[in-house]
Parts: sequence; structure tokens; C-alpha cells
Amino acid sequence: MQIGIIGGTGAEGRGVAARLAAAGVAVLLGSRQIEKAQDAAGRLRAVGGGGRIEAGTNDDVLGASDLIFLAVPFQNAAQLIAGQAGKFRPGTVVVDLTVPLGFSGGRPSIVELPEGSASEHLRARLPASVRLAASLKTVPAAVLGRLDEVLDCDEFVCADSAEARSAAADVLTRIAGLRLIDAGGLDAARAIERMTLLAVGLNKRYRVRGARFRVVGV
Amino acid sequence: MQIGIIGGTGAEGRGVAARLAAAGVAVLLGSRQIEKAQDAAGRLRAVGGGGRIEAGTNDDVLGASDLIFLAVPFQNAAQLIAGQAGKFRPGTVVVDLTVPLGFSGGRPSIVELPEGSASEHLRARLPASVRLAASLKTVPAAVLGRLDEVLDCDEFVCADSAEARSAAADVLTRIAGLRLIDAGGLDAARAIERMTLLAVGLNKRYRVRGARFRVVGV
Repeated sequence: MQIGIIGGTGAEGRGVAARLAAAGVAVLLGSRQIEKAQDAAGRLRAVGGGGRIEAGTNDDVLGASDLIFLAVPFQNAAQLIAGQAGKFRPGTVVVDLTVPLGFSGGRPSIVELPEGSASEHLRARLPASVRLAASLKTVPAAVLGRLDEVLDCDEFVCADSAEARSAAADVLTRIAGLRLIDAGGLDAARAIERMTLLAVGLNKRYRVRGARFRVVGV
Repeated sequence: MQIGIIGGTGAEGRGVAARLAAAGVAVLLGSRQIEKAQDAAGRLRAVGGGGRIEAGTNDDVLGASDLIFLAVPFQNAAQLIAGQAGKFRPGTVVVDLTVPLGFSGGRPSIVELPEGSASEHLRARLPASVRLAASLKTVPAAVLGRLDEVLDCDEFVCADSAEARSAAADVLTRIAGLRLIDAGGLDAARAIERMTLLAVGLNKRYRVRGARFRVVGV
């Protein structure tokens, strides 16, 4: 199974690539410009890990991948999907990592979306033949990208189907120190995305950079 | 400082009373009917704990308390406040425990409120002289009420002012096994109340009854 990352050169995309490579999972790291993807892949290879990291354009990733991590900023995600809808392979599972964070009055805030969450917003714009899961929304990119930092936390997986949830979980469960929590349908993203905003506030208030979550009692 | 509980005979109110009493904090437990309050207080005293539990009507609680836990169901909270606005003592700190849970298509859901959260909804209806904090929204009542169960989790405190946040935290920090997390302003309740819905779903999905949260990295 080919695993790809769209927006692989951003902090979130690099973090996912690093954690997956460290877990021995091969990934195709995509960017709009092949040079940027090659540069990022080269740096990640230098970090080490058993999984091979190849570079490509976002188009290459779309055409070749069975499971795609969508790691572009939320503001670009809907447009990217609209422009590339015909390029997804039927049956592809997309894992949405986006969080609709904006700024309101100089403070981080959630961009209110009619669908209730970024994941539901994107679901409404993806081809019906593509299945959508959402995960890695709360683990900070800054922590993901530092392999010397133990994750020691939980991450939620929600999806539009049991198949998408399983496909995402099967890959993500290989990441060390991360426990996956089945959060049910995509509407769970309404809570999860707001938890990210909450964590951003905690980072600022407690002068840390890695606030994240664990579920107790499960 | 007199601490009171409005809606003290429900599962949430009894749970708070039990945890505070166990921590040596005296509380005035209120209900609409004095007999119900007396009955609940009597049962809680039998459980033990160093803090004295007195019984009163909700009106008694309003008239006598410096800090009031609002533990009625959300559906009753706004009406209760509207009907009692004149009875709050100026400077009272109210700690809102409500979560706007409803049912939609047979499934638990969040009641969407124009203010964004139950806490902001109630803030808009409370007298200006009363300060509002929100906490204990995510710890399940079923866990709070069982003193033999170690909480071992975090709970968020958000508020309309530093004073209200401190007043709430000073009391709640005495509860064993509970770490308080400063979540900032009342708008944090938008995330926190949805986390409760998320936890309700986890309880069902994982067949547990005490899903709750801890923040890692803080």
C-alpha cells in the first residue's frame, strides 16, 4: 500500500513523515514543487528511520497513493481538493490533519464552518469515491517533528466509514508512543478541532509548546 | 466562605458535594424542595468525609453562598437564573457545571447556542455583579460520585475574570486526584463542552463509564 503526504514540506507534513519513517513505514512526500519535496525528503532521510521517504509533487502523490495524509493548511485544503478532484484514485483514503484555525482580534480562534468542522467541510467537497478519516489534529507539529521527544499521548481517529477509520488506524498505530482512540463519525472533529485551539491556548498560558491529550478511563 | 450547590440532589451535584466533603470543604446542598436536599445530604453524610454537608432550598443557597456550583441540567439553568437574578449576592462567584447535551436522531449531540457555549449563554443572563467560572464539565458524574474511584485526571477551569477563576480553582484544587488546568476565558467552554460529548461517545464505544481527560506536556 502506497502512503502519501500532501503538503509534506510543512511542519505537520514533515512531522508525520518523520514519525512514519521511524516506524518503518515508506511514504511519498509531496509538495507543489518537486524541488521542495526533494529537499524535505533529503533532510528527513538524514534524521534516519527504517521507512523510505520518496519525494514527488502533490499530483504524484494523488496519482500513486492508496492512503493520503492531507497536511496542507486548512485555508488551502478545500481549494486543493476542488482543483484536484479528478486525480484521486477511487477508493483512496484521505486522512485529514487540518484544523480551521484563524485569528480573531489578534487571538487564535476557530473558523466557524457551516458543516461544523474542517473534516465535514472537506468531506462535502471530496469525490464520493474517496473515503475520509481525520486524525493527528491535536498532536502538535512541533512534537511530531522531534523524534527525540516521546509522544506519550492519545490521538483521536474519526471517519466517514469503518473502512476509512481502520485504514488510517492501521498506519497510525505503528507510530511509537501514540495510542489511537476511536472517536466515531466525522462529526467528532467538531470537538477535536476545538481541542487543538484549547491546546494552543495552553501552550501560550503555560509557556510550553507540546500540550496534547490523553483519555483516562478507556 | 460559604460554598453552595444549586441542583445538589442530581448526580452531578451529589458528586461534587461528596468530593468536596471528602476534601474537608463544608457545603450547603440545595434543591427546589428542602426534603429532597435533606435526604441527599443525609445520604452523603453517611458516606463520610470531613466536610460538613448542610441542606437548604436553592433559594437558601443563593442567599447564603459566596461561591455556588450550578449543577442543574443545562435545560433548566437559564430559566433558573432568569427567575432568581435578584437573589444573588453581589460578588458571588458561580461555577457553571452544565453541558448543553441534547439528543438528535437518537444520538447525543450539543445544543448549538448563539453564544457558542452554555457558559457564555449563562453569562449573558447573569447579573453583572455575579462573576462566572466554568469547571467540572468533563469529569463524569458517575466517577465524581464514587469516592472509592481515584479521579486521576485533569479538569479545566475557565472564567470571565481572573478573580472568578482563582475562586473556583482554590476550592476545586482541594479535591484529591484532580489537577486543574487554566483554560483561560469563558469561550474555552466551546471546546470543553464538546469534549464532554466526545467522552459520552467514548463511554458507549468502549463500554466504559468514566472516560475523561488529561493534558500531556503541561
